[in-house]
Formats: sequence, C-alpha cells, structure tokens
Amino acid sequence: MKASTLANLLETHRPGYSLDQIFYTDAGVFAAEWEYIWKRYWLFAGTTAEIPKPCDYFTYSVQNDSVIIIRGDKGEVFAHYNTCRHRGSLICLDESGHAPKLMCPYHQWVYNKDGSLFKARLMPDDFDKTSFGLHPVHVRVANGFIFISLAQDPPDFTKVLNDYEPFLKPFRIDKARVAFKKRYTIRTNWKLVAENFRECYHCGPAHPEYCNAVVGANLRESSDEVLAERKVEWRKKGLATETVDFENDSFHFAVRYPLRPGVQSYSLDGKNVCIPMGDHRDFDAGVLGLVVYPNFWMDAVSDYMWTMRVTAVSPSETVIDLAWLVDGKAEAGKDYDVDRLTTFWKITGEQDWALCENNFKGIESSRYSPGPYAPPELEVARFVDWYLDRMREGLHESVSI
Amino acid sequence: MKASTLANLLETHRPGYSLDQIFYTDAGVFAAEWEYIWKRYWLFAGTTAEIPKPCDYFTYSVQNDSVIIIRGDKGEVFAHYNTCRHRGSLICLDESGHAPKLMCPYHQWVYNKDGSLFKARLMPDDFDKTSFGLHPVHVRVANGFIFISLAQDPPDFTKVLNDYEPFLKPFRIDKARVAFKKRYTIRTNWKLVAENFRECYHCGPAHPEYCNAVVGANLRESSDEVLAERKVEWRKKGLATETVDFENDSFHFAVRYPLRPGVQSYSLDGKNVCIPMGDHRDFDAGVLGLVVYPNFWMDAVSDYMWTMRVTAVSPSETVIDLAWLVDGKAEAGKDYDVDRLTTFWKITGEQDWALCENNFKGIESSRYSPGPYAPPELEVARFVDWYLDRMREGLHESVSI
Amino acid sequence: MKASTLANLLETHRPGYSLDQIFYTDAGVFAAEWEYIWKRYWLFAGTTAEIPKPCDYFTYSVQNDSVIIIRGDKGEVFAHYNTCRHRGSLICLDESGHAPKLMCPYHQWVYNKDGSLFKARLMPDDFDKTSFGLHPVHVRVANGFIFISLAQDPPDFTKVLNDYEPFLKPFRIDKARVAFKKRYTIRTNWKLVAENFRECYHCGPAHPEYCNAVVGANLRESSDEVLAERKVEWRKKGLATETVDFENDSFHFAVRYPLRPGVQSYSLDGKNVCIPMGDHRDFDAGVLGLVVYPNFWMDAVSDYMWTMRVTAVSPSETVIDLAWLVDGKAEAGKDYDVDRLTTFWKITGEQDWALCENNFKGIESSRYSPGPYAPPELEVARFVDWYLDRMREGLHESVSI
Repeated sequence: MKASTLANLLETHRPGYSLDQIFYTDAGVFAAEWEYIWKRYWLFAGTTAEIPKPCDYFTYSVQNDSVIIIRGDKGEVFAHYNTCRHRGSLICLDESGHAPKLMCPYHQWVYNKDGSLFKARLMPDDFDKTSFGLHPVHVRVANGFIFISLAQDPPDFTKVLNDYEPFLKPFRIDKARVAFKKRYTIRTNWKLVAENFRECYHCGPAHPEYCNAVVGANLRESSDEVLAERKVEWRKKGLATETVDFENDSFHFAVRYPLRPGVQSYSLDGKNVCIPMGDHRDFDAGVLGLVVYPNFWMDAVSDYMWTMRVTAVSPSETVIDLAWLVDGKAEAGKDYDVDRLTTFWKITGEQDWALCENNFKGIESSRYSPGPYAPPELEVARFVDWYLDRMREGLHESVSI
Repeated sequence: MKASTLANLLETHRPGYSLDQIFYTDAGVFAAEWEYIWKRYWLFAGTTAEIPKPCDYFTYSVQNDSVIIIRGDKGEVFAHYNTCRHRGSLICLDESGHAPKLMCPYHQWVYNKDGSLFKARLMPDDFDKTSFGLHPVHVRVANGFIFISLAQDPPDFTKVLNDYEPFLKPFRIDKARVAFKKRYTIRTNWKLVAENFRECYHCGPAHPEYCNAVVGANLRESSDEVLAERKVEWRKKGLATETVDFENDSFHFAVRYPLRPGVQSYSLDGKNVCIPMGDHRDFDAGVLGLVVYPNFWMDAVSDYMWTMRVTAVSPSETVIDLAWLVDGKAEAGKDYDVDRLTTFWKITGEQDWALCENNFKGIESSRYSPGPYAPPELEVARFVDWYLDRMREGLHESVSI
Repeated sequence: MKASTLANLLETHRPGYSLDQIFYTDAGVFAAEWEYIWKRYWLFAGTTAEIPKPCDYFTYSVQNDSVIIIRGDKGEVFAHYNTCRHRGSLICLDESGHAPKLMCPYHQWVYNKDGSLFKARLMPDDFDKTSFGLHPVHVRVANGFIFISLAQDPPDFTKVLNDYEPFLKPFRIDKARVAFKKRYTIRTNWKLVAENFRECYHCGPAHPEYCNAVVGANLRESSDEVLAERKVEWRKKGLATETVDFENDSFHFAVRYPLRPGVQSYSLDGKNVCIPMGDHRDFDAGVLGLVVYPNFWMDAVSDYMWTMRVTAVSPSETVIDLAWLVDGKAEAGKDYDVDRLTTFWKITGEQDWALCENNFKGIESSRYSPGPYAPPELEVARFVDWYLDRMREGLHESVSI
C-alpha cells in the first residue's frame, strides 16, 4: 500500500464511528499494522509459570517469526529468534520443552541458553563463533507476565512494570500453576476482538453467565454503590484499587471492579473454583482486569487468573490462546476441577468468538458502512483513536526515513 | 487490471473460437466481470415457494455480500444487505428462517421487514433512526422466481416478466413445494458452466439418461417432426410455445421442446415422478427451458421444476445450488419419492460438473489455445459474444466516468 | 518481479553462504525460476517400466501443465500437452492407463498416439484437421528414464545420454518392474530439497540407518580405502566407475560409491531385499547415484533402484514422487517383500522431509540471515552457484529479447 493511500485513509476516518472496511480486510493495511504496531510494541508471550525451572522453554509464533523463550540458570528469561545461524532451520520444534543447550536438529550447531554459539562442528579453524549467536529478542517480565518486542528499539516498559506491580504481586504468578490452556483460530480481524473486549453494550443479551457474575455488566443497573463499598474493604486488605487509565500515549491499563454481592468467583454458580491464589486469603478481590495493546487481556479473580493472548495471522484470521492459572500449591482433582475452573470463560469466550466472526463477515459486505458507536462504547472509540494514532505515527516515521 | 489491457484482450478475441485462457483464470478479469456483469444484471436468488409465509426469509451470499430476502406481511418480497448499520455485524446468521423483526445478534439493533430501523437501544436522543435503515437491494419477482440486483440502477426487467408470464403461470410457483435442495462447489470458471448448458454437442456420449428422455439431444436424430406435432397439442391446452430468443441486447430466453414420444418426465424410466404441477392436468407439457444470464437456469416438465442457481466465487470456483419444486399439494412419500424425483438431474448435473472441472483444468495449461466451436455450439458462441459485449460496455462506461 | 530487482538480488549474493530469504519464499522469484530453469531444462517424468506396452500412458503435472507420456506401437515414447485443441478439456483424466486412441471426454475429439488429430465429429467440411494436433512436448529416454522439456528449444541432452549409458545399461530399466510408488507433499522450497540431497553434513545425527549402510556417510571415517578396493572389483565385472562430475555448464552427474563392507543393499539389516537387478549377478555394485537438475535424483544398489522426482508447486510447496524398481522377473512375495524393499528409503526420506520443512520454517523468519556453508557442504554451494548462474542467464536472455 502506498504511503499516500494509507495517509489518506487515516485522515478521512470519521471520529466516533467504526473503521472503514479496508482497515479490517486489506492485506496492505495489515502489513502496515504489522510494522507500525505489532513489531513496535510489546507482545504478551506467556508466563514464567510455564517455565518454572532453568532450561524450560516455550516458543511463540507471530507471523513468520518463531521466538524461543527460555529460563536461564538464575531464573532469568531469555528470548531468541528460532532460526539457526547456519542455514536457518528451526531449532526448537516443539511448543514447549526442556533444553540445557539449544541444538539445531539439522546440522547440530549448539547454542547456550543466552543465545551464544557453543559449538559448530567441522567448521574451519578461522570461523568466528562470536558472530553467530542467535538473534536476540527484547524481553521484559512483569511479575511473571513475559512480554517480548520484535522492535529494534521498543518503547519504554517501565510504566507498565510499575503500574502492574501492586496489582499483580499478590497473585505470585512465578509460583503459579498453569492449570489449562486452549487455542482457538477464528475468522476475524484482530481489532474486532480488541473492540469486543472493550465494551459491555453487547453483554446483556450475549453473555448471561458473565452478567450473572459481574454487577452492572448488563448496563441495566448501577455498580457504583457496590464498588464504593468493596473499595473500602479491598484497601483494608492492601489490595490495589487505583485504576490505571488507558491514555493515548500509553498502551496499557488496569482496573479492579466488583463481582455481584455474594459471588466469589467467575463461575456458573458464583462459588469459588479453587483455593485463593497467592497471597489472597479470601474470595473478595473482585475482578482485576488488565489490557496491554495490542495482544494481551487478563482477568483475575481471587482464586484464578485467565490470560488471553491474541495473535493476528492475517486480516481475516486471529489466533486466541487462553490460559488458566491457579495457586502453585493447588492440586487438580483436590483443590480444583479443570472443567469447573474453565467452563465460565470457555462459554463467555466462545460467545465472543462467534460475535467477532459475524461482525467480520458483515463488514466484508460491499455495502458495509461505518456506524456510530453508542455511548457505552466509549472505550472502543478510544482504542480506535489509539490505533489510528499509532498508524499515523508509524507512517510518519517510515516516510521520514 | 488496467483498462487498456482489458480493452486489448476484448479486441483480440477470435470470433467463433473459445476465449483466451486469461478470461477463465485471471483474478483481474474476474473482478471486471464482477463489476460489469454480476453487479449490473439480475441474479436469481430463489423462489417465493421457499418463503411461503410473512416473516419467512432466506439469505443469498454473492461474493462478500450476504443478502436477506424476506416476505412482508402482504406477501411482498424485500431484499436487504445483511450488514448492521451499527458496527456491521451479520444480522441473519442462518440460510433461512422466520423473523417478525430482524435483530442484530451483536448489540440488538432491531429492523423492520422493510429494512427501516425499529430500535437502537441506548443511543443518544438526537440519534436519527431514519438514516440507519438496512441498505436496500433491488428485487423483482417473476411468477415466483425472485431476482435481485446489486446495481445502483439495474437494467429494465419488464421484458423478462412479460415474456415469462405465459410460460410460468401454469406452474403456480408461489404455491409450490420445495421438495429438495442440493449444493455443489466445483473447481471451474462460471462461464464454463454457462457454456456447458448451451450446447448438446457433448450430450450424446456424456448424458445417456438425458438423451433417453429428450428427442434429438444426441444430435443423431431430428426432433422437427415431434416438435411440430406436440406444438399443436400444447396450444390446444393453452401452453405457451413461442420461443423467446436470446438477443445480444437482452439477457434471457425461454423455449419449450418435446420429450421423446412416450416419455412423461425427466426420469430414468420415462414415467412421471409426481402429480402434475399447478394447472397442468397431464404429463404432456414437454420441457420448458429458461435461462437468465449470468446465473439462472431452469428446466420444468409437467410434474416438476428444476432450478439451477450459479454463483461465481473466484475464477476457479463456482457454487451450484439446485432446487426441485413440485406441486404445493404434493406430499412426500405419497405423491412423490425424493430419490426418484431428484435422481435424473443429480446424475445429469454431476456428469456436467465433471466435464466443467476437466475443461477448466485443461484450459489452465500454458499451451491451451482457443479452439473452434463446432456448428452445434452456435449458442455457446452467442453467449461468448454477449459476454464480451457486456465487458466492452462496462469498460467503456467505467472509463468514461 | 522487475528485472532490475532480480538482477540486484543475484548480484548481492555472498558466495559460500546460503541464499537470501527471498529466493526461498517469494512468488516473483519462483515465477522467474519457472521460466529460467523449470521450463528450460529437462524434467524427469518417469520410467519406461511404467508403460511397458504400446498404448500404455501416464501423466505428469508440472504447475498448470499436465503432460501425457504414451508408448507408441514401436515402443517409442511420445509426450503431449494434455489439453484438447477444441475447447481445452483435459483428455487423460487418470494418472495412468491404456489408450489405443486419445479421446477427449467432453466432445469426443480423437487423437492418435503421436498427437495428430484423428477425428473431430460434426466439424465443417473445410475444417483442417492437420492444424489441430495435440501440442507436442520434447522427450528423451535415457536407458528407460524418460525426460521431458517444456522449452521451445531445450538444451542438448546428448551428454547425459552418453554419460549415463554405461551406468544404467546393466539395470535393464525398460524391462524392470515398478514395485512401489509413494507421493509426499511437503511444505518447503524445492531448492532446500536439492540442497539437502547434496551434503552429508547432516547424515550422522539425522540418518542412522543410512550411515549404517554407507561407509563414510557419518563424516567420522574415511571411505578411501574401501572405495579403492571396490573399484578394482567393479571394473573386473565391467561396471562403470568413472565419476561424471557436475560442471557449472552441465546439469547432471553420476557417481558410484561403496556400501559398508558386508552390506549388500540399502536395507535395515544390510542384506539384499530382492534378486539382483538386470545384468547384475551379485550384490556388489555399491551405490550408483545420479542427479539431473532441477528435479531428478536416483540411487541404485545391486538389487533395486530408487527414483525421486521433485516437483515445485509454489515457493512453499514441493511434491516428492518416489518409485522403487526391481528386476522385471522378480515376483512380489517371492523374490521381494514390498515392506522390506521400501522401508529403508521411506525412513531416510521422511527424515529428510522433516529437516527440509523445518529448514523452510526457520528461513521464513524475519531475522533469518544467510549463514556460511561448512566444508562438507561444498556441493551445496556448487548447486547454489549453478542455480544463480541459470537465473542470471535466463534474466539476461529475457531482457535482451
């Protein structure tokens, strides 16, 4: 896509309305998003709970890049491009594993966990091993949440680390147990998922289970009173309650909001589904909600944490990876039942995938025209503004070069 | 595809020969066809027999556009683009159903059957509902056959309505029963299907069942005498017999031709497969054949009607939707057996899909070269000429703009 | 792809390093390869053993071209494009068969085995049949190996015929039996298969079965002594031993190398899997290895022959067709067991497909960078040089036109 074409598209957007079709369906726009957003910002990869021991690793594939995330001997986290410096083969073939050294399966070049080349057999004597380490990927760990960036010079992550610390510390993610993971591949644009998860205009009719758990989600009742009450209690227990607002020049937010009185957890019957997680001592932490654009969503209640990693594959395809984390000491079958733990978000998530797929199909119509956001969709409009600004920014910088 | 490239292709066609490869395989040509033919002309969507009651609807998907066809309270037929004016979601998710109001499943905007917006909850007071009705689609009903046009200003349909009236009236399609439907997705170009259905040069060897039923189809015998005899009888019964010729400036035709003496219907044994349809009182109506370019074919005998809706998906993919209609009072298991009713056209159709797929594969060869049509393929040549003229016309108009 | 872009890519290659990503993944490069290599050179199609009798035929599909290879009445081999001169349909629908005449299934135009048009029914009297024979394809037979070329003026094949004659004659391929065939479709670039099959740097760890059979394949032991000994014996029996080197201005090579002492055949236990093939009288012919770029690999031991036909489908897809040939008098169940015959190369081949697929996936990474070939990969570097020279040559000629 020509820079002038994209610039024109960005200029003609009508504020307060949904985006033009081309932003959801066009391969050229998608390529620009990839450069200006996905390869510039921080992507949630997974949690340290998935790689508890040194030499544990997992891989994360974004577009054509497979990234190895591996624990060092001191608990540190390294990230490398999963492509051998010899002839380019994938090194780690599995989505997760344990490897004291990283050995390429093709010609057995061997790398250390920090990415440096350990051994390349039969190479000439003058071969300079130090020039052939694995290409590094930036990595940051926010209380157990691992974020990577494919950028050369990624944006500062300090504010996210600081803002999230008080919210996340009590969950003790580094010691948590990954109780279940599930992958969905859905036919929709990634931004429609992002939009869906920023408004509850659809919740009343679409999510009866969610509305049973969360006060006010149906937009037919106020949650103000309950929230005020709970905040007092939460503060007494030392739980963070100060909302981290999403600002146009940031890319994250955090909020704690109340469950319906008497509801202990995200579950179909409102009762807890596991023992309290980490430092929590009861089932009264409400819901902690986090978002880091473009690919991370998380909701945590007192007894479990649900992470959503969104990966854009093409304009029309998005992969959703869900994980359920519980306290590290919790035992399956005793302290939690996997079905009971996961049912609530499977049901709610699958309702959303269908909405997002139908939204995309309708947008593909030659007669789709952007429509006005309703007042309860304010945060969607803010996301769209953020998105457009990032695109303008990226375009501006790339044209300047 | 550049206008000059297409213009050049259209100019260099050798009359009386099949089209160049590029017309069958190229995405640019396909896009031009879409603009100049599929989005300008009338497309067969289905029959009123499929939506007998007010609020009954079905959807038809052409390229990225899903269209809702719904019966109004007075039996009238409305057609709308299936995309919500709020954020674009599909409204009707099923291929058919019954809906007193059309409600979007995402945020519950509600539309009337005529497409006007009935309710949009939580929108501001100054929101102007009248500006957000569903985008309309042109619709015409020819004695129960529903045609739509995605054009802004479609060609006049009056001549088709008038020409078809005497042929179709006796079948009473509005009261008919849809006995069976079947969909095929085949790997071929839509024009090869159109060409296949305009000549019987292939019938003798390829369609033994069809040739058993239709006198002269094998090109080894004359049907003149039988036709002359039958015409006299048909006229006595008030059946229309005047062929509606396909003219280069029209897009439809109609013809009645005889079955082999003693054959009552399109069936493997030549016997009728249902009670006479509509006003027919015997099994001597011969075959009524209709074509409306680019997507409608129909053959009707005295006891049933077979419709073929052709939908171009891409240069190499075509969807074929078949429907078998019988008299509205006919009961399955008593007056007809579904297998017996449908076998003849399943066999004959599937023979044709194979021919069309093999034709396409051969045309994909780098060494395919257009070949001469044989004398019995005159109507194919006329279709090709019509097609080329429509493309020239569309190109001319779009360049003029 | 613009000629200047490709020219620049060809210039900036770093000798001794693997190719840039674009050579493996780009559709424009692939299209250029198709023109400059696949449509200019000779492609292995199959063996005369597959069409032992007059009128036997098989088809070979390369890109969009299906080619009919058919035996004439005197045992000669004809090759034609599989597209009817009437309206272009495929003529032979099956991958192999027997046809005294080639009849198009659509309108029954009939061709002779030499491709001339025999009959076109109902065509006008002035129709000139001689102008509508099947489009011919160049064909050469090297002791039973059938090569075709889609070029207008293919390179001279005489040197291949002469060089291969002494090696192949003893196998009596024309009288051989095709004991088994197997097709694999793998997600990799065809050049990665070519590279894989030109080095044994990977053999030690990746191919334990192969290293058990072939002395020196693991690169940890010398085969010089064994080779010198065997050569004396081979010459006594009249077996060709002079290596045909691969030169940059040729496109083939041949080499005979020894099995490990005591090993009789490519088998898991080292014992023969069939009776000696053709003129061979023992199991001491070592391994005969042939390559004809871009698509033919063959390994033959005393008792069987294994051919590999590589067909590039797209930058990321390659079809591998394997065939196992044994002596014409050998009987399945008595002289050989199909499982025992084929296990060795199924195992070894499937190890290679996985390596080639993983190699491709890693090369797709945005951070893949060409790496240095190791000394045992000299022949890979030579193939890459040959490839680049052919591309330069083709580009030069096409620009000159």
